[in-house]
Order: sequence, then C-alpha cells, then structure tokens
Amino acid sequence: MSSIIRSALSGSRRLYHPALTAVRAMSASGPTPPFTTLSISQPASHVTHVELHRPDKRNAMNKAFWSEMIDCFNQITEDPECRVVVLSGAGKIFTSGIDLMDVAGALLDPVADDAARKAWTTHHIILKFQESFSVIEKCPKPVIAAVHGGCIGGGVDMVTACDIRLCTQDAWFQVKEVDIGLAADVGTLQRLPTVIGSRSLVNELALTARKMYSDEAMCCGLVSRVLPDKETMLTAAMEIAGEIAARSPVAVQGTKINLVYSRDHSVSESLDYMATWNMSMLQTQDLAKSAQAAIEKKSPKDVLFSKL
Amino acid sequence: MSSIIRSALSGSRRLYHPALTAVRAMSASGPTPPFTTLSISQPASHVTHVELHRPDKRNAMNKAFWSEMIDCFNQITEDPECRVVVLSGAGKIFTSGIDLMDVAGALLDPVADDAARKAWTTHHIILKFQESFSVIEKCPKPVIAAVHGGCIGGGVDMVTACDIRLCTQDAWFQVKEVDIGLAADVGTLQRLPTVIGSRSLVNELALTARKMYSDEAMCCGLVSRVLPDKETMLTAAMEIAGEIAARSPVAVQGTKINLVYSRDHSVSESLDYMATWNMSMLQTQDLAKSAQAAIEKKSPKDVLFSKL
Amino acid sequence: MSSIIRSALSGSRRLYHPALTAVRAMSASGPTPPFTTLSISQPASHVTHVELHRPDKRNAMNKAFWSEMIDCFNQITEDPECRVVVLSGAGKIFTSGIDLMDVAGALLDPVADDAARKAWTTHHIILKFQESFSVIEKCPKPVIAAVHGGCIGGGVDMVTACDIRLCTQDAWFQVKEVDIGLAADVGTLQRLPTVIGSRSLVNELALTARKMYSDEAMCCGLVSRVLPDKETMLTAAMEIAGEIAARSPVAVQGTKINLVYSRDHSVSESLDYMATWNMSMLQTQDLAKSAQAAIEKKSPKDVLFSKL
Amino acid sequence: MSSIIRSALSGSRRLYHPALTAVRAMSASGPTPPFTTLSISQPASHVTHVELHRPDKRNAMNKAFWSEMIDCFNQITEDPECRVVVLSGAGKIFTSGIDLMDVAGALLDPVADDAARKAWTTHHIILKFQESFSVIEKCPKPVIAAVHGGCIGGGVDMVTACDIRLCTQDAWFQVKEVDIGLAADVGTLQRLPTVIGSRSLVNELALTARKMYSDEAMCCGLVSRVLPDKETMLTAAMEIAGEIAARSPVAVQGTKINLVYSRDHSVSESLDYMATWNMSMLQTQDLAKSAQAAIEKKSPKDVLFSKL
Amino acid sequence: MSSIIRSALSGSRRLYHPALTAVRAMSASGPTPPFTTLSISQPASHVTHVELHRPDKRNAMNKAFWSEMIDCFNQITEDPECRVVVLSGAGKIFTSGIDLMDVAGALLDPVADDAARKAWTTHHIILKFQESFSVIEKCPKPVIAAVHGGCIGGGVDMVTACDIRLCTQDAWFQVKEVDIGLAADVGTLQRLPTVIGSRSLVNELALTARKMYSDEAMCCGLVSRVLPDKETMLTAAMEIAGEIAARSPVAVQGTKINLVYSRDHSVSESLDYMATWNMSMLQTQDLAKSAQAAIEKKSPKDVLFSKL
Amino acid sequence: MSSIIRSALSGSRRLYHPALTAVRAMSASGPTPPFTTLSISQPASHVTHVELHRPDKRNAMNKAFWSEMIDCFNQITEDPECRVVVLSGAGKIFTSGIDLMDVAGALLDPVADDAARKAWTTHHIILKFQESFSVIEKCPKPVIAAVHGGCIGGGVDMVTACDIRLCTQDAWFQVKEVDIGLAADVGTLQRLPTVIGSRSLVNELALTARKMYSDEAMCCGLVSRVLPDKETMLTAAMEIAGEIAARSPVAVQGTKINLVYSRDHSVSESLDYMATWNMSMLQTQDLAKSAQAAIEKKSPKDVLFSKL
Repeated sequence: MSSIIRSALSGSRRLYHPALTAVRAMSASGPTPPFTTLSISQPASHVTHVELHRPDKRNAMNKAFWSEMIDCFNQITEDPECRVVVLSGAGKIFTSGIDLMDVAGALLDPVADDAARKAWTTHHIILKFQESFSVIEKCPKPVIAAVHGGCIGGGVDMVTACDIRLCTQDAWFQVKEVDIGLAADVGTLQRLPTVIGSRSLVNELALTARKMYSDEAMCCGLVSRVLPDKETMLTAAMEIAGEIAARSPVAVQGTKINLVYSRDHSVSESLDYMATWNMSMLQTQDLAKSAQAAIEKKSPKDVLFSKL
Repeated sequence: MSSIIRSALSGSRRLYHPALTAVRAMSASGPTPPFTTLSISQPASHVTHVELHRPDKRNAMNKAFWSEMIDCFNQITEDPECRVVVLSGAGKIFTSGIDLMDVAGALLDPVADDAARKAWTTHHIILKFQESFSVIEKCPKPVIAAVHGGCIGGGVDMVTACDIRLCTQDAWFQVKEVDIGLAADVGTLQRLPTVIGSRSLVNELALTARKMYSDEAMCCGLVSRVLPDKETMLTAAMEIAGEIAARSPVAVQGTKINLVYSRDHSVSESLDYMATWNMSMLQTQDLAKSAQAAIEKKSPKDVLFSKL
Repeated sequence: MSSIIRSALSGSRRLYHPALTAVRAMSASGPTPPFTTLSISQPASHVTHVELHRPDKRNAMNKAFWSEMIDCFNQITEDPECRVVVLSGAGKIFTSGIDLMDVAGALLDPVADDAARKAWTTHHIILKFQESFSVIEKCPKPVIAAVHGGCIGGGVDMVTACDIRLCTQDAWFQVKEVDIGLAADVGTLQRLPTVIGSRSLVNELALTARKMYSDEAMCCGLVSRVLPDKETMLTAAMEIAGEIAARSPVAVQGTKINLVYSRDHSVSESLDYMATWNMSMLQTQDLAKSAQAAIEKKSPKDVLFSKL
Repeated sequence: MSSIIRSALSGSRRLYHPALTAVRAMSASGPTPPFTTLSISQPASHVTHVELHRPDKRNAMNKAFWSEMIDCFNQITEDPECRVVVLSGAGKIFTSGIDLMDVAGALLDPVADDAARKAWTTHHIILKFQESFSVIEKCPKPVIAAVHGGCIGGGVDMVTACDIRLCTQDAWFQVKEVDIGLAADVGTLQRLPTVIGSRSLVNELALTARKMYSDEAMCCGLVSRVLPDKETMLTAAMEIAGEIAARSPVAVQGTKINLVYSRDHSVSESLDYMATWNMSMLQTQDLAKSAQAAIEKKSPKDVLFSKL
Repeated sequence: MSSIIRSALSGSRRLYHPALTAVRAMSASGPTPPFTTLSISQPASHVTHVELHRPDKRNAMNKAFWSEMIDCFNQITEDPECRVVVLSGAGKIFTSGIDLMDVAGALLDPVADDAARKAWTTHHIILKFQESFSVIEKCPKPVIAAVHGGCIGGGVDMVTACDIRLCTQDAWFQVKEVDIGLAADVGTLQRLPTVIGSRSLVNELALTARKMYSDEAMCCGLVSRVLPDKETMLTAAMEIAGEIAARSPVAVQGTKINLVYSRDHSVSESLDYMATWNMSMLQTQDLAKSAQAAIEKKSPKDVLFSKL
Repeated sequence: MSSIIRSALSGSRRLYHPALTAVRAMSASGPTPPFTTLSISQPASHVTHVELHRPDKRNAMNKAFWSEMIDCFNQITEDPECRVVVLSGAGKIFTSGIDLMDVAGALLDPVADDAARKAWTTHHIILKFQESFSVIEKCPKPVIAAVHGGCIGGGVDMVTACDIRLCTQDAWFQVKEVDIGLAADVGTLQRLPTVIGSRSLVNELALTARKMYSDEAMCCGLVSRVLPDKETMLTAAMEIAGEIAARSPVAVQGTKINLVYSRDHSVSESLDYMATWNMSMLQTQDLAKSAQAAIEKKSPKDVLFSKL
C-alpha cells in the first residue's frame, strides 16, 4: 500500500555515512513522483525524510501540497519499514505558509446561492485543510520538525502537530493569520498552547503576528534544541531519529499514541487507557529482547526488532 | 448601552501622541463616574485603558470594585469602538488584593439559620466574586495586564484572567490566600496552572504564599515581558495594544474566543469548533482588504476595518 | 488507623533544631517496620519524611515497595498530625526505578490459558502499579520530592505525582521505559506533560530515553529549585515543608485538592467545584484566626490550628 | 431584589382552598406588571405560578417575552418564599412558539457590513434567546410545566428546560423549526434527547416536524402524567407542587442542582460533586427535623423549615 | 465525486408514483456496480435508497461490504441531489450480521511475530470496521433504517448508527456477539444505550444474546414505528423520507449534525455549538422562503430550495 | 483472596436442579460468616447469589452492611469461579434503605472543632458510602437485582448500580431521601437518569418521594421484567444468570466493562476504547471455541471456557 514511498526509497539505502550523506544529497533531489511538493528519502534504516520541496516558492503551501500531505503520511503510517520521520524544508526557508494566490479562490469565494451555502462549503474545506496536519498526529511514528529560516502562518500549524521541534539559530516563527484578517484555523490556536508553557506569550504571538526568534522559541519550549545552521540541525535531527529508530517500535509508537491521548484527557482517563493499551503490548518479544540487552549492557541499537 | 464608557471617553480622543499622553494623563485622573474604583480612558483609537483607582488604599478590592468590574467589562464587550483593553493600577502598587475589612462581614459571617444555609449564601457570593474576573475572559477583546509593584491575592486571580501580562522590574506576585486560611477561590487555582509552564512552581506558590519576583515571573512564563519601570511598561503595553487595535477585529476577537475555547477542550473538539466558527467569519470583507494590503506591502495599520 | 506511622514517629519529636537534626539522622536509620523499603520519620511538627530505603539496591522498586507505598500514603492521609510530606531517597541515588529482576516474572509472563487471559491479568497488575503512585496524588497533604543523583524510569513516574520537586546540582532524570521495549505505564506519559512547559522536550525525553540534567530540569520547570548538594536540598525541602505545615490545614489541603481537580477539568468546571468546596470550608475558625494574625502582623506560624 | 414578584403575590396568600381557588382565579387575571406577557400568582404557600399570558396571540413569544422570562426567573431564584414553580399558558393553547412577525426583523436581517458581522450579531442574539430558557434550568427551584392544547416550536424548547412535565389529553407537541428552514436553536436539539428515551423518535420529530399527541408523549416519557382536562391538570400540578413545597428546601433544591449536574457529567464526577455538595448541606437542621418527624410518623408537611 | 451513485440513479427518476413504484422495483434489481453488496436507487426526488443486496447469503456482511459502505456513504455525503437515505435489506431478512467465514481469517488470526503485533493489526482492522458504520453518522443526510425479519449482530451495530428506525411486525433484533466469544465492537455497546431508554434491557440483550421482537423494540424506543409487513414499512419509510426531503436541506442537515453533537456533549456545550453553527446558517434564503410559505399557508413541499 | 466466599460456597455445588434448589434453599440460610448482613451461596455453576440478610430489620443498611458490601464484591471480582451475580433480599421486602438509627450518629453529627472540619469528615464518610455501591459497577461480572416488596431510599441507589433489574408484581420503589431533608447522595441522582428513559419521571420521583409500582417501573424501563411472585422472579433471575454464566467470560465481562465505559464517554471515545480493549481480547481461544460451536449448531452452554 505504501508502494510510492517504498519505491522512492529503494535507491537510497545502504549508504556509508547515512545521516551525513543524506543531508548532503537532499538539496539536489526534486519532488518524489507522484508528489509535486514533497521530496521523500530514506537517509538511514527505518528513518524517512520528508522535505517540503517548492524552494523557488519558499515552500508555500499550494493546493497540491494540502492533499499530498494526507497521502504521504497515510502511506508512512502503513509502511512497516518506517519508524520515525524527519520533516524539513528545501531552500532558503522552512515555509512561507499558505499559498494565498493558489488557494484563495476556492477558500474565500466559494460559488453558492446564499451565505449559508457558502458557509457549508467553507466548513468542508477547512476540515480538509485541518486533516492535512492532523495526519501527522494520527501517524503513530514520531515526527521531528527541523526548521530553518522562516516558519510562517501554516508552517506554525504544521510544526505544532509534530512531536519534536529543532531549529537553526537564524530561524523565526510567525503566527501570521491575524494579519490577513483570519483566526488561524488549521491548528495553531488549538495546539500551540499545549506545546509551549507561557499562555501570555501564545496570546501575544497570535494576536499581534510578531516574529519569535530561535532563542525565545527555545526559552519558551517551542523547540527543544537550537543548532547553529541547517546542516548541523539536520545532523542532530538524524541523530535523534536514529536513537528512536533503534528502539522497539512497539514501545516507541505506543509512547506516541499515549502521549497524544494524555494531552486531551484527564490523568485518570489516560492511566486507564494506558493500562488497556498495555494489556496486549506487554506481550511483545521486544520486552525480553530489550531486557536481555540491558542485562548484557548492550545498546538497544544492537537489538533486532520485528516489523510493526 | 455602553454610554457610560463612551461619554467618559469623549474628551480624550484625537491626542497628538496618543499613547504617551494618555500614560502621562492617567495618574492625574480619578475614578470615572459612576465608577468609584475604576478610571477609564481611551489613550488611542480603539484602545480602552482601565485603571484600578483607589491609590490610597493600594487598590484594594472593596465591595464596589467587585460589581464595577462586571459593569465595566460588560460595557466594553458591547462597545464597538473598543478593540483592545489595557488594565493597570494607579499609585504605588498594582493591587493589594481583596479589601478584607470591607468584604469580610458578608463573606465570612452570613446571617443564616444553620450551617447549610450559611453555605448556600456563601456559594452565591463566591460565584458572584468569580464572575468579576470571568467577565475579562468572556469579553472578546484582548486584555493586557500591566503590573507594577505588588500584585497580591485577588490581583493574581485577576491577571490570570487577562490575555497578555507585562510587568516592571520591581513587580512581585503573591498567591496570598493560604495565609488567611483560605483556598484561593476566584480563579488562581484554576487559571494559574494553565498560564505558566511549571506545575511544581504553581504548587509551591499556592501552598507557601511566597513572593515571586519579576525575573522568575518572566522565566516561568507568567509575564511575557519585563520592562524597567511603570512608564516604559505602559508605553510597551500601549504599543502592543496599538498593534492589536490595527488589525481586523473579526480576526482578533475570533482568535481570543478560540484560544479560550481550546484551553478547555481537546484538540479535535477545538478544531471542530474553529471550523464551525470560521464558516461565517471567513465571509468578512476584512480578508480581502487584508490580502490586498499584504500584496501592496502595506501594514494592517493602513487598512480601515468596519466596526464589530 | 495510622498507628504504624504514629508509633514509628513517637521517638523523633520535640527536637531542638528539628529540620537540621532530622536531615542528619536520616542516613543512619533503616526501614521503619513493618515496611521493608521505606523509612518514616517526623523531622518537625506536622512534617512526615518518607525515605526510599534500599540503598544497596539503589532504591530499586521491588514487589514489597509497590504495596508498601499504598499502605504508607493511605496512613498518611488518615493521620491528623501530618500536614505535609517530604519524599527522598537513601544512599547514592534517588532511585533506579523498577526492580526488573524482582517484578518481571509476574508482570511479563503471567500464567494464563491464552493471550486474552494473560492480558486480563496484566491489566489488573498495571492498575495496581499505577495506584502505588496515584495514592500520592489522592493524599490531600502536599508531597515534596527531593531528588539527588539518578531518578530513573519509575522514579520519574513517582515524582510527577508529587506536588513540588527539588533536586541537587548532580541530579538527572531519565524516562527509561522505551529502552526496555515498554511504553511508560505508571504515570509518566500522563503526568509529565502537565508538569513541564515544553511538549517537544517531553516527547524527546520519552522517545529517546536520554538523560536530563538538573539545569535543564530547572529551566523546563520539572523542578522549582536546584540546590548544591543533598544536605542543602533536604534543608530547603524541610523549610518549604515548615512553611506549609505552619498554615491552616483547611486552606492547604483544600488548595491541593483543587489544584489537582483543575488540572483535569475546564476552568469553568473548576470554578464551580471550588465554589462548592468553599461552601463549607469558609466556615472554619482558621479564617478568623488567620485574619486576626494578619491584622496583628503575626506570622501564620504563630497561630495554632485545630487538627484536620 | 425580587420585589416585583413579591408585591405581585401579596394579595393572593392565605386562601381557603389554595390550589383550587388559584386555578379558578387564574384565567381572570392579566399580565402582572411590569411584565406584559407573564402573569404571576402564589396559589399556595411557597408555590409560584407563572402563566404565559398573551391568550389572544396564542401566547406567541414576542420580544418582550424573551427578556421578561429572564427577569422573572432571576427573581424567582432570589425569592426565599418560593420553593417550586408551576408554568402554564392562558387561553386556548400552551404556546404557538416564537412570534416570527415580532422577532424576525432583528434575528433574520441584522444590519451589518458583511456576512461575518451579521453572523456576529446573530450569535449574540441566539445566546440571549437560549438564556431565556436556561434560566429555568439554573433556577434551583423545581419547575413543573403544565401543557394544554398545542406546544409548538419554542414551546418545546421551553418545556424541555423544565423539571416535570404534565399535559392534558388534547395536548400535542411539535418541533416546528425545520418547517421554517431552521435548526432548532434554543434548546430542543440539546435537551429533548436527554428528556425522552427513544432517539429514533426524537430524530423523527425534529426532522419531520410532525405532531406528537399526549398518549405518545406519555409513552415516550416526555410527560410523566396525562390528565383529562386543563383544570384537572392544574390541580394535579398544584398537588405535586404542594408535595415539593412541603419538603426541606435544602433537600429539594440540592436534588435539582445535582440532577442537572449529573445529566452533563460522568457518574463518577457526579458522585464526587454530590459528596462535595453535601459536605455542608448535611449540616442543616432540616435533617434532624425531618428525621424526628419520620420517627413520630408525621408527614414532612407538618414540619416547618427555615427559608433558604 | 459521487459519479457512481449519480449514474446508477440516472435511469430511475421521474416515475409516476415515485415511492410505491420504487418499492416495487426494488426487489428486482441486483447490486449497483461497482458495488457487489449494495443496490442503490432513487425512488423519489432527493431520496436515495440503499439496499443490502446479498439475499442468498441473508445479507451477511462480507469483506466487500465493509469497504463498500464507506465508499457509498462518502458519495452520498457529497451528492447534492440526495437529502435523505432509506436503508433496507433485500430478501428474507434484513441481515444476518458479519459473514464470519469470509472475514474471520484476517480478523481472528492475523499473521504477526508476537501477541503484541497481532494486537496491533487487530486494532487497525477494528477501527476500519467501526468506520463502516460511523460513516452513516458522519453523513449529514438523515438515514432511515427499515428492518424486516432478522437484524442480527452487526445489523444492530448498523441500525443504531442510523437516525430513524422502523420495522415490520415479524422483525427481531439480536445482539449476537457474546455468543461468539466477543464483546460487540463495531458500535452496539456504544450506541444502543443512547438509542433506547432502558439500560436494564440493553444490558440483558447484550449479555444474554436473546432475541427482541418488534413489540418490545417499539416499547423500548429502539424503533419509532412497527408496520404490518415489508411493503407497508417501505411505503412508510418513503413517506417519512419524502417529508424530510421536502424541507430545507440547510435546516434538516443542521438538525442532524446538532443532534449527533448533543448526544456526546453537555447541554451547555451543545447550546454554544448550536449558536455558533447558526451564525451562518440563519443567513440562508430558505428561511425567508419557508416563512413566506408559512404565511401563505403553503406546505414546505411547495417550496423550491437550492442544493446544498 | 476470595477464600471467604469460596469456602462459603463449597457445600452448595453439583446440585441436581441447581437454580430451583437454590431458590428453595435460600430462605433457610442465615448470613454467611464473617458477614453479618449478607448471605452468599452458589446456586449453580459460576453463579453467585448475594442475599441481603437482616429480614427482621427489613434488610435496613446498618454500619456493618456498608463495609461488608465492599468486601463481598471485591472478593467476587477476584473469584475466577464466579461469572455472574444475583442480588436479592431475604424476608418481606428487598430493603428499607439506610438504617438511620445505626448510622445517623457518625454521619449527622461528627465530632469536630468547626463546621469546616465537620464537613471534611462528612465528605470522607459519603465517599465511603458511595463506594459500597460503586463496587457493584466496578466488578466486571454482571449483577442482576431481583426486587420484591419495597425498595426504598438506599435500595434504589443500590439497584441502579446493578446491570439488570427484575421485580415482582407487588414491588415498589421509592427515592426517599428528600423526605429526610437530604439530597440522595450514594448514587440515585447520578445513576437513575441514565437507567430510565423519562427525565420528567426521574425528577418527579426524586423531588416528591412518591412510590413507583412495578408496572410503572416496567413501563419506564427501570426493570426489564416483572414476575408474579418472588419464587418465579428468582427462577427467572437464575435463568438469566445461567444464560450469562454459560457464555465466554472474556466476552461477557468485556461487554459489561465497555457498557459502563460508554455510559460515561462520547461514542467516538467509547469506540476507541473498545478497539483498544479488543486488541488483546480477540486473541482468546473462546472465539474459536464459540465459532466452532456455532458451526456445529451447538449452544454456548455446551462449550467449556477457561477461567478468567
């Protein structure tokens, strides 16, 4: 079912210095067919790299992008080879956000007989747009966002749906929607307050559309690391990805699923769900394998886990 | 409906340097009738300044204050001229909190035939008191708290209901209730943990009643900026207010409403609500006006938006 | 009902410099019978000290520990003498987490006729394990965790259920579960995201099992203070405990109960609960006593409150 | 605060056969000033009768009605003399629902600059309308609806917010909104499914606007009794009201508050709220008085309870 | 997007006696390609008839069925011609439920390396199966289930996701899952208790797998009408469908969406959602058209509403 | 752990006509030690009969009863032999409810220094009392209440926590609490509205304390069957119990757990929980055994399932 991604990846395996080579190789590659806005590669075993790839348009999110994201992450969800994803942007900046020129027609002026029917169509479209980032959250594989340069408007919606965020020294974030007369509606207002610790700051960013630079992003917890430049950042992202990919996929994916669940439920409900989840998940061989490795002082990287 | 506020404001418009003049004028003015504890002014277009104004009593919250807050913010909610509010305190400190001498009788020793009936009356009174700050949250216009000197007891309940918090270098915050044998019951225990990132710190503050100074308040996210002194802070608050006032009120107020909603609901419910909200809100002219301005590289401040 | 704890404490009261003496005495004492893994003392009036006490096993959590925790905190809940608890570890580190050797048999390989029946037993066991830390949260007396050295695996689950967290300069925290093929299931995935401000960091810690050192723990809000060494930290913990113990237990315990409630409910529901709670709690003498002390400029420490 | 209602009632007390006389007196009286659509009387001790009173307009709900309901029930909430309310309609039918002619202008064609601003105004108006019936639910005194003839559109919204429903043999109910191009928005879609047992029936009624007659209303649980005619029904309503009025108001109003709470919360949350509520409410003298009466085999009607 | 359904329907329009003819025509037609288990027709304007069509297999739910349901209802959701759906079964009975022979392999014995990985696959499959009926609920067009003969196992899951339920005199319902060692997992345990009024009955049915006949189904509210035979029942279903199809689709579909919402939320949350929904939906022409028709004493059937 | 119950049962197994004999034997037996208010027997394989046994006190609920219920049902939860429970009352009536004489002291007049501390103690006691019936709900084995004669006050709280309810022709139910100045606080106000279909009736019963007889109880769904007399009712209860006991305990207990869960959660949350639950539970042998029996046209009663 994930044939597109799998075939796209077939040429890139067994590299000598996987992370580094992948990083260097990436800027050369274009979009991976049939995608026109995303480039997919497998820089290391069990790691999938998704790159926003419209560099000449500053990775603006056009119509194609919104639907390709859904296909891409649905395939990643099904791909048993993939255990962790790195998401970055090609070119000068991470993304300039929604491509208003391309999208505006359908969104802002739907053809309909009255205001209620316009509203009906608009509702439908917004739900689709929201889905384009919710797939990141529904995908049980952890997704690491690696941001350089600007991360504007829809870009913030996107990275708040990721699990781990890194950025470069020169990165900045901007909740831009209020500047175009719009309350952010594909996830920022919903997820940003759960992602960072200061509500005063969230409100200030969303209400004034001011830029937040990397040091403030680190300080408030939006990103968990700031790296000097893009290459270093991608190496760091790949290292984190490598750590995750080396561990039991039963443990890793169960962890993501329960972290997302606990965000939206009370502690006692989340404990109940966790206990129910682990009714079956504790019956994995990975536990014995991992325990054995721990006793033998081996790293989890030396253990071979079955596909999931 | 908002005639009190509107007439109170009629003299203060069209000032040369609005923010600065307003700030300078403020310490001179007394309470704005019919209010006896609040001074209202309009330092700039679409900006309302609410000042706690019992400086000789350290802005202690007496009976009049609790009901004037409700009237004041209900009027602000209805006033189409107002798009953003700055809340500060006159005199030496922001506020010393509840005026126990004035309020204690009714609260602590209600006349009733038995303990259950006392409890019934108490319940009624607490709900009223809670409402005095909940109106800040229910008002769709963003409210910026500007705190100098002490912000004690009820003051913390009040500022946690605001959207953005600034303070001066010499400011300190104190959850005082436990010192008077009382669990804080007008909002601190409910809102403070959603406002700052460290629960260990919230618990320590609420359980020991120790003071937290401005640097710690900045570090934990309670305030998003610390300014050197009161005048500078009010200038900064007015600048933020100016940024917000210049943007589409449809966008700004929709943003506040959805930020408050998302705090109390799961991400998927909040996304659904957002999509439903924007069914109609995307049908505003402000979107086209803002987009046009963006294309022409103009600031949102150069766009004229209709009242809301 | 709390006879074990009370008799265990009978020798340690009325010390001259209570906090300091207690800190010095602690390393000498062994487990308090009938407990085999916990040492209980009363270093100061109304303060109970619970020490993990298997120092030669790095305070690993064996079968006995999991059930002793429940007994211990249930007794503390009932003990009217106790108003606040300090939780620390004897020996080199706070705790190495679950004692896999001792616990693994029952947990990982339950005897049952099929996978469903194994799951049923596993479910039962996990719920019991979760209860071992949930008792900390259900106990209305504040619990201060004082961490030195390593706090690994189950240790993180335990301290996230405490109310206030301190640590030493050399302390480190590690969400270890993913290393043994397991999604953390006794509280970390549920409570850690509510305890610290950065979700990116929570995810990184839980998915990679990397160590977090004391400075990062302070910065992200996991602990609210870092102290240079164990002795200083315990003194600080005892001082905080002393502050809490000196205040009205009606106020303190009502504060904890409402802080836990507000974590799991919307603001408006929490305000309603608070108002209902205080229907009766405002009818305490402590309020008049505290107010009187405030007027006379006395400290709460000079007020004598009834037991609760 | 409840002076209007209290003075309106001053002439009607101490009647010989209270319920019957009141029933007979009612059709003669007009609206009780300052109300223009409601007639208020006190047919028996502690019982307030609210009658929709625009008989020549089939009690259609005009602008005045929507705001008078709020004033009326807010006053009833405050009136310590009132312990239970009966709600009925003067003239041929209970109510024909919203008075479209009177209300339509403001609701359906608000003056505003664009569709979003129209929506904003509409939102405001709907919330006000919803409040007109939510006051019934927020009032802690039980409200008994007595329906004869038609109960159409807004009438169904209104009676589903009442606590007990009776009707006459010739009564019928009609969820009319879908017939005027409108999803019912002042409470029917929210409360009807919680009020009756068959969701298939709820859906059929709401989607087809068909009439439901008294026997079906009884069978599905919408009403708990069907009486032969209006006079008999009002006598029955007054008897139920008398039973309720004779019991401890602490018990009765606590029961209503907790029944409403339990509808909207899980069982375990509702049990927790109940326990917190009764922390104070069990400290009433009414308990001892009632217990004493029970031992002496007296009726609750022979016990004199304090006001609440 | 709904081309399959639309072309399938093209031959069946403009019939003289639409409802009756359709009913008569139905038993003759086979599955509508590309579907192999469903027959689709348009018996009347705006009414879509979906018929389970494996009569020789008693409409058992095989693999094809589970995925065709999703395609079918997604298309219906998009089809602006369709305003209401009737769902019935071809042949002797409504449905015998899941086709164990066809489905069991994948479900009961997934190929996987350990019990945890089997569980993972099972989880995935169950979610898909649940989706096959949840599409009925997510489709904003009302769905009327018309049941004759047996409605067994998965059939009960399916009809509880419908909006209105009718059945024949000889119909019976059976929650069969417990008989095959399985807790019902595609919707019965979740929806049946919200659909009928007696929880004692729900529990009895689900725990004993006994049959419930039509009279009991009517009495408990599972169905809202019992008709003598299949032909009469389908005529009744078509009449209800006709009533719904004749009304404003803005009103009808808004009603369904809000009824489903209110089932899963508190009354106050549902009122808020309703008000937000109607911000735009009250701006429909349908309202004026319907009001005009009402004034002119016309039926909604005489009004022409735009597509939605 | 369930040794008391198991030894109490050891004499009653392998009877010829199990159900009937048990019914006949019951009136002879007294309380089963160490219980003083409950008589336990095993009338048939896998069926446990719990009988309230203070017939001379009309099974009034004294102090011993409240704690014995907890012990009894905790043991039943652990007993792998037990798969279903029948709960009935010895003597003339089911139960007269709380034994005020025995319980009142502790509950109504706790010794404490002020009203707040009384409230604290009261809170503690109510939570314990609530637990006495919540254990019925937490026990995964279905519990069938068989009610004859009166079921008063606390009796209604108790039976609403059971899964299936039967009663005799002469049975009546009375929510008595309001008569003694008390809002029902051990479960009736929380569970009764989820158990029967008519909210108007629930409110009437709870607010007026009137009796409801068996026919009305049947009609509103409180009971699912009315039987002519006690003996017949117990036979019917035993037959239902036998049906349940014969089925896979994995299926039966999973069904109960998910039915209780779905009552307190939204449909989509309940579907998610169900899918997670069945990840492991579908891996039972019972499924294959049951399917095999179905193919061979055998009854589930002919299948031997492992213990759970």
